[in-house]
Amino acid sequence: MSRCAVPTPTLADSVRLDDDGVHVLDRRVFPFEHRWVHARTVEEVARSIEEMVTQSSGPYFAVLWGLVLAARDAEGLPPETARTRVAEASARLIATRPTNDQPRKAAAFVLEAIAEADDVAAAALQGARAGDADYRRRCREMGRAGAALLDHGARVLTHCWGDLYLLGLVEALLEQGKQPEFVCTETRPYLQGARLTAESLAEMGVPTTLVTDGMPASLMREGRVDALVTASDRITMDGSVVNKVGTLQLATAARAFGVPFHALCHAPDPRTTSGSQVPIEYRDGQEVLHTLGRRSASDKVTGLYPAFDVTDPHLVTSVITDRGAFTPAELHRYWS
Amino acid sequence: MSRCAVPTPTLADSVRLDDDGVHVLDRRVFPFEHRWVHARTVEEVARSIEEMVTQSSGPYFAVLWGLVLAARDAEGLPPETARTRVAEASARLIATRPTNDQPRKAAAFVLEAIAEADDVAAAALQGARAGDADYRRRCREMGRAGAALLDHGARVLTHCWGDLYLLGLVEALLEQGKQPEFVCTETRPYLQGARLTAESLAEMGVPTTLVTDGMPASLMREGRVDALVTASDRITMDGSVVNKVGTLQLATAARAFGVPFHALCHAPDPRTTSGSQVPIEYRDGQEVLHTLGRRSASDKVTGLYPAFDVTDPHLVTSVITDRGAFTPAELHRYWS
Repeated sequence: MSRCAVPTPTLADSVRLDDDGVHVLDRRVFPFEHRWVHARTVEEVARSIEEMVTQSSGPYFAVLWGLVLAARDAEGLPPETARTRVAEASARLIATRPTNDQPRKAAAFVLEAIAEADDVAAAALQGARAGDADYRRRCREMGRAGAALLDHGARVLTHCWGDLYLLGLVEALLEQGKQPEFVCTETRPYLQGARLTAESLAEMGVPTTLVTDGMPASLMREGRVDALVTASDRITMDGSVVNKVGTLQLATAARAFGVPFHALCHAPDPRTTSGSQVPIEYRDGQEVLHTLGRRSASDKVTGLYPAFDVTDPHLVTSVITDRGAFTPAELHRYWS
Repeated sequence: MSRCAVPTPTLADSVRLDDDGVHVLDRRVFPFEHRWVHARTVEEVARSIEEMVTQSSGPYFAVLWGLVLAARDAEGLPPETARTRVAEASARLIATRPTNDQPRKAAAFVLEAIAEADDVAAAALQGARAGDADYRRRCREMGRAGAALLDHGARVLTHCWGDLYLLGLVEALLEQGKQPEFVCTETRPYLQGARLTAESLAEMGVPTTLVTDGMPASLMREGRVDALVTASDRITMDGSVVNKVGTLQLATAARAFGVPFHALCHAPDPRTTSGSQVPIEYRDGQEVLHTLGRRSASDKVTGLYPAFDVTDPHLVTSVITDRGAFTPAELHRYWS
């Protein structure tokens, strides 16, 4: 089966650079509306991340193209000044989400490209394009490594929206003719699973069932799940998986019911040795008190929203990287 | 501290008999609206259960008062005919929800009361009142048994809406001055935790935090939960807990993180020896695709909604009954 046989879902290309700025598909209203937010400045790009216009892989691309905006704005200035402007923009964009380290990686592509450049704007664009291509290539390689772990007809449970990580896996499964089926958690409070994952899998023609966040253990107990596969916001060198809150609970259930848990990650983060070193972002508890913009509890009630959780290595079967799958204990080999 | 110091929440009295029928507080719109559905006939009472106007302890009371309606409708008929009419109504009402056995217990109170009666309507009313009093007494006794297991200041995680079971526990904790704190899961798709549990606890002045259904394991891992306590729709003689879907996942996490799981139940069901004997109700998957009446996924996506799950006895610390707390292994003693 050729690659071109796999349909490309809408979200595979949802942050775009244009002459007038960065256009970001608004994931808060997707799939009900295909509305694009137009970010004309670095600050507007940063806010589009902070306000969840885009998330998952989206901020990576938003940072790439946001830094191209910064470099364009600095055109005409001395290269040294332009580089300082881009570095300042980079700091602003990286600060948008403290748990995920993708924005930092995106910025590194651009900062490296402009480090010695006279034409900072041209170099930034080149660096951003290289970052874009690198990310997509690594997702494809990671996807092939993940597909090798799954059998024909595998019933895969996933949580939140794995974005290009997950799409790389699904593309590889489809290319290999493995005919996977997916169960998606809806992933409250933002319902990324219901709105982004289930929709994208359906766009790709993959049989997909949506459940609430409390149902997966029940399905596992009945033998209806062959593997839990999620993306990750960061994986530390001991194999701790930092991902959307809820992942830990699913991994705990998976372990209890003999279901393997595979976590997708281009590479483990060499700067963090264990999960306890990763700051967990607490978002506004008000978000838990709302669903699709409507209140779900009265104003007598207080919400709590830790946006991520840490799944300890003993609950992780494999870390699937662009260099193949590793057990947590082997993960140090990725960098050696 | 005297009992009267504990505020009574709205939902403690949410199914009422009146001369013109049964009035059922509509839990689908609570707490945002206090709207009462007026059921004039047994069929309308049955539909109020099937359509989730009321749930949890609500159907028990709806069956009691629904059978009083049936007996009233049969006034003037020969007692034998009236009894047959009430028995038919009982069958209709019991059939509304296949997993929960409370409707059957409620019906037994009325059917027993009318068995030898000449004035069937008067006897039905007396039986229903006895059923009402019995249920509330048992909830208070169960609550005291549960409170004995919890320390001062206990941080209790609960799931879905335990109704009078939970309120009995909270009343006992407050009467004993134990100052509990609660974490409630929102309990998708109906958001009973957000709309019913959190609201009722707040009405009672108990500090209450609302989380999404995926967050509890993360809180347990951080040591922020002292006990998981839920009601149950049925507990079988081996200590299997049948309750709102999601309970199994929380119990699995509780076991993994050393948090005890106590399940509330007036009494184990002597007719079922194990969880595998309890039919699990599958509700319309469309319910998973909606939240508060709005679509949460596009029409490309299929939803699945097992309404209950079974938590195996090895995950259950105690079954809290109106005769005290039992381990699953001891539970047979309840009836001996």
